[in-house]
Amino acid sequence: MQVIHNHRHALHQGRMEMFRGELVPCFERPDRVDIVLAELQRRGGHAIGEADGSFDEAMLHAVHAPRYLEFLAGAWDEWVALDPGNAQRDVLPSYWPAPGMRRDVVPHSFPARVGYYAFDAGTPLMGGTWQAARQGAACAWTAALRVAGGECAAFALTRPPGHHAGADFYGGYCFLNNAAVAAQALRDAGAARVAVLDVDYHHGNGTQAIFYERADVHVASLHGDPLTDYPYYLGHADERGSGAGLGFNHNLPLARGTDFDTWREALAQALGGIAASNAEALVVSLGADTFEGDPVAGLTLVSDDYLRIGEDIARAGLPTVFVFEGGYAVDALGINVANVLDGFAGAAA
Amino acid sequence: MQVIHNHRHALHQGRMEMFRGELVPCFERPDRVDIVLAELQRRGGHAIGEADGSFDEAMLHAVHAPRYLEFLAGAWDEWVALDPGNAQRDVLPSYWPAPGMRRDVVPHSFPARVGYYAFDAGTPLMGGTWQAARQGAACAWTAALRVAGGECAAFALTRPPGHHAGADFYGGYCFLNNAAVAAQALRDAGAARVAVLDVDYHHGNGTQAIFYERADVHVASLHGDPLTDYPYYLGHADERGSGAGLGFNHNLPLARGTDFDTWREALAQALGGIAASNAEALVVSLGADTFEGDPVAGLTLVSDDYLRIGEDIARAGLPTVFVFEGGYAVDALGINVANVLDGFAGAAA
Ligand SMILES: [Zn+2]
Ligand SMILES: [Zn+2]
Repeated sequence: MQVIHNHRHALHQGRMEMFRGELVPCFERPDRVDIVLAELQRRGGHAIGEADGSFDEAMLHAVHAPRYLEFLAGAWDEWVALDPGNAQRDVLPSYWPAPGMRRDVVPHSFPARVGYYAFDAGTPLMGGTWQAARQGAACAWTAALRVAGGECAAFALTRPPGHHAGADFYGGYCFLNNAAVAAQALRDAGAARVAVLDVDYHHGNGTQAIFYERADVHVASLHGDPLTDYPYYLGHADERGSGAGLGFNHNLPLARGTDFDTWREALAQALGGIAASNAEALVVSLGADTFEGDPVAGLTLVSDDYLRIGEDIARAGLPTVFVFEGGYAVDALGINVANVLDGFAGAAA
Repeated sequence: MQVIHNHRHALHQGRMEMFRGELVPCFERPDRVDIVLAELQRRGGHAIGEADGSFDEAMLHAVHAPRYLEFLAGAWDEWVALDPGNAQRDVLPSYWPAPGMRRDVVPHSFPARVGYYAFDAGTPLMGGTWQAARQGAACAWTAALRVAGGECAAFALTRPPGHHAGADFYGGYCFLNNAAVAAQALRDAGAARVAVLDVDYHHGNGTQAIFYERADVHVASLHGDPLTDYPYYLGHADERGSGAGLGFNHNLPLARGTDFDTWREALAQALGGIAASNAEALVVSLGADTFEGDPVAGLTLVSDDYLRIGEDIARAGLPTVFVFEGGYAVDALGINVANVLDGFAGAAA
């Protein structure tokens, strides 16, 4: 498979995140991508390259608000300008708008703008974040171009992940929504309708929000029930899209501890909805935090299950862009992600 | 003056708050009330007592949502039940609803409910918080009863403060809105219209939100411009109330570094609006973080200025309940607060 690797991913390396009242080392680490890359290289059969240099930031404007992109691009410099000592710690928000507070006025204060755009205190922003995230979006865009150009599938191997980032908010370790960039690129390349399938353990709230009122991108997500799992405040089954997008959002929340057979039935439902949507191309938000022992999730999949996931997705018969999302049980992450891709390739062949 | 002292205030003693990417010792400390109490005792002429034992939590239902009160009352036990080690650290939120996320579904996860109700990570909740805050509301209620019963003025000397707390959210060191409880108690005792005057450095966003659609409580606030100062996302001059409350909310945002003469002109405007509202009683949210050298604010008032503030308020000629809010330059806090009360008493006499 074509693998588009973000060679700048390690420029983003968050130090501490807030977790239950204290700052703890960030779960989202650079070795997550390194171990997947090493496993793909070890197995062979993958064409590993980098993003096309022709990527243009204007591509981001279709899925993100320009003022949000400006904020992200300049955030680190503003942070250090507040206090040179800030260079030693990452940007984390301290306050944010309560319900009923203004969204139509953007504060001048930089810390206030952090809370205006962030929805958690677990997503440290640092000096290299913008470059790493921008390059990641370029990888997702490039993978989409390869698929639009005739490849059966491609994989954007990048971090930070993207599916929690919305048009103008970040959180869940995500700044730019790579899956949304890929979906938009497929649309721009001529697919009349594109589907996004999110198999990460966590609801892809950002992707849902970006396409919620659009009929041209069908979004399906399997995930831990938001009543008990991050991102908590979105991802319920009754969220079906709105306006023109009504009927084109499909959430399948699952209880903690759901077994793989049940999970796989939900996958079949999601794929059924995608088939019914007449999508001409597919983007898969590929998180492997459904794995047993993942430190931030609640399922118990084993490595072989990821082969089945790949096979099931292949049977949709759609040109497919895989985009790397979560997965924090790092030791097994390479095997699990490679299993999805090899399962897909084996069944698609 | 009648002073109603919260003798349980020290049960709340937040340890750390998030400030610019790190956890720092909490600015809102128990000695804030102790030093004010000591200064009032030193000066004499004040009748210092405690809240009436007849306070009923049902009094809180008129200004706070029952499910929010339930959350606050049980929060510490839920926190420690998550992990016994949590007893060593205060409750702070890690995530919260981004714009467009659900408010109609309350998550089951306790940490998610923390972020559902909190709007900053600077307001630690601990084992004694509920008791301290509940007793503080009882003090504000008692002070209002004394004034309704014929006293010219009374002072609720309590912490945690209250004016940032809304019907169902907390932040800015505030959990229960003491000023709103006092205003409601004055209404219930027969005042046809009550005014709240907020002279704390920070916008009283909670008080504004609670009464925003009501014509029976006029809210006026002088404060640092939210473009640059906490709470950032509310407090602009164009917020005038809505529905029946239109015209009964009056914000006077002031630039950092505004001199006292200009500040006092704004106070005159606020008092003019209160007079025009035909209020029959007044609640003053009395913060002294307008003082020079306050570590979390941006004005330069000196101690004598607080005598003038008290005098100006007295000239409104209204029965007045003072409620203690912010002020973090602790050494001068007793003098400044006592100066307001003595300035008021001198001019009212
Ligand atoms: Zn995830
Ligand atoms: Zn204040």
